[in-house]
Amino acid sequence: MDTTDHGSRPPGDPVVAGVDLGGTNVKGGLVDRSGRVTARFTLATADFDDPRRLAAALAHEVGVRLGGRPLLGVGIGAPNGNYYRGTVEHPPNLPWPGVTPLAAWIAEAAGVPCLLTNDANAAALGEGLFGAARGLRDYLFVTLGTGLGSGLVVNGALVYGHDGFAAELGHVVVERGGRLCGCGRRGCLEQYASATGLVRTYRELAPDAPADLDAHHVFQRAEAGEAAAEAAFERMAETLGLALANSVAYTEPAAIFLAGGVAAAGERLFEPVRRHFEANLFTLYRGKTAILPSGLPTSDAAVLGAASLIWTAHA
Amino acid sequence: MDTTDHGSRPPGDPVVAGVDLGGTNVKGGLVDRSGRVTARFTLATADFDDPRRLAAALAHEVGVRLGGRPLLGVGIGAPNGNYYRGTVEHPPNLPWPGVTPLAAWIAEAAGVPCLLTNDANAAALGEGLFGAARGLRDYLFVTLGTGLGSGLVVNGALVYGHDGFAAELGHVVVERGGRLCGCGRRGCLEQYASATGLVRTYRELAPDAPADLDAHHVFQRAEAGEAAAEAAFERMAETLGLALANSVAYTEPAAIFLAGGVAAAGERLFEPVRRHFEANLFTLYRGKTAILPSGLPTSDAAVLGAASLIWTAHA
Repeated sequence: MDTTDHGSRPPGDPVVAGVDLGGTNVKGGLVDRSGRVTARFTLATADFDDPRRLAAALAHEVGVRLGGRPLLGVGIGAPNGNYYRGTVEHPPNLPWPGVTPLAAWIAEAAGVPCLLTNDANAAALGEGLFGAARGLRDYLFVTLGTGLGSGLVVNGALVYGHDGFAAELGHVVVERGGRLCGCGRRGCLEQYASATGLVRTYRELAPDAPADLDAHHVFQRAEAGEAAAEAAFERMAETLGLALANSVAYTEPAAIFLAGGVAAAGERLFEPVRRHFEANLFTLYRGKTAILPSGLPTSDAAVLGAASLIWTAHA
Repeated sequence: MDTTDHGSRPPGDPVVAGVDLGGTNVKGGLVDRSGRVTARFTLATADFDDPRRLAAALAHEVGVRLGGRPLLGVGIGAPNGNYYRGTVEHPPNLPWPGVTPLAAWIAEAAGVPCLLTNDANAAALGEGLFGAARGLRDYLFVTLGTGLGSGLVVNGALVYGHDGFAAELGHVVVERGGRLCGCGRRGCLEQYASATGLVRTYRELAPDAPADLDAHHVFQRAEAGEAAAEAAFERMAETLGLALANSVAYTEPAAIFLAGGVAAAGERLFEPVRRHFEANLFTLYRGKTAILPSGLPTSDAAVLGAASLIWTAHA
């Protein structure tokens, strides 16, 4: 029986807010303990050149959707998000230069705890709590979108590193003096294995490709049997397969999950990645690590991941 | 006052046996809680083509040195040692093919628990308990000897991986189609960064070098100002520095420790490694991870590491 003072209506099951902060949109949702997204909202990132106003707007959007349910906290996935400090630091695609103490401002605006990490770390956590990594203590999560994001779970816990920025596999140098990366260095994995990398490889193989060609077009061309498009997938898989085999030599995960837009290519991606991965593994690791698709719908993965930051703290 | 029935002599402080199983020698010692090695012994590996006889011999060697002190357990560092199963699996340099359940046999022979892992993992643990990594929750330990061994500590615990063989950085492929490695693949880091790798690089630069030249000779020639020897160190540091910078993108350690024979080269090694490391780091990591020498004497590091397996369990 409801003995608290929430009025005549029972307070309902507690929920958590998950927020994915992207360069274009801020996507939010309320997530219950079972991983069901019970409400969604979207804000335009460009509308908030003052992050304090974004904190207030998020608190408002969440508040109006609670319907009397207790809010346990707000989880945020953000580029260059730092878990220890609750900050977003020098993000390449957000209108806030420098270091923004976003978690503290959101906690203050919403009146509940706020935890924040890198968007791919959050997604990795979501995969473990609600997706295909449930029950696994050691896994690697890789999201292949515009760039390559990753999250690493060891001994059942997300690896944040000594300073909160661990697991940036997209910036492992796989080719000395290779393609120029947005980070200023050359040869980073994400310049080869991502939507950007796939298109870049395809353009090298088919210089006459139209200017507006994107990764989905390359996929369609490969499915139609075009040799250059098929070769672009094969080359991406060759580089990614080797990089993932190398990653096993660090933490020996039981499984590696591939998510994001490029992973929607299915066997066009997974078959050659598994082949090159297995061929490049050190003897002791062969046949022991699975490469699997994410078990979460792409549309909700980021919000579920961000919400997992809070649900993990309530496990 | 001694009220137990150990006879007239007090039982003394408990000790742990640490055993380093190498291709040539089996080195053992008794280690107290403070990391003092109070007794040492050496056996010739080739004398034990039956590992059950080695287990019995180890129990005997340890037993005669106890002098009434309680023995808490035996820790073993062994090539291809598996912590979860207590096995040595397909070791390249031991006379036992296949899978040997060595920990179980030693525990039976010695009448105390026995824990076993890879020799470099054990050394990494020793660095954290008794050496320069004391108090660090996230670090990487690399030993540069004949090969390159490594151990990885995340969130205060050694990373064993899902199957017990994590942290084999020596077998990260750093050069596609590069030098042939003993593991059968090409381009493994240990073919570039190790005593073997250094000599190999030097021979490429100085094809007339004598047949019996070793890594220490290369060091002496570099110290004497010989250009090819200096260049061999620079190239090793270039490859190792990049590989260590890439490794930060996995677990973001607070420090990386370099140990083993090649690390005795001191600044001849550390200066160029730090330079190439820092130059190759992803923006978020710059200036945050130290590259340091081991704090343990090379002669006792392996025994202290093996003993740490047991002392860590009694922490």
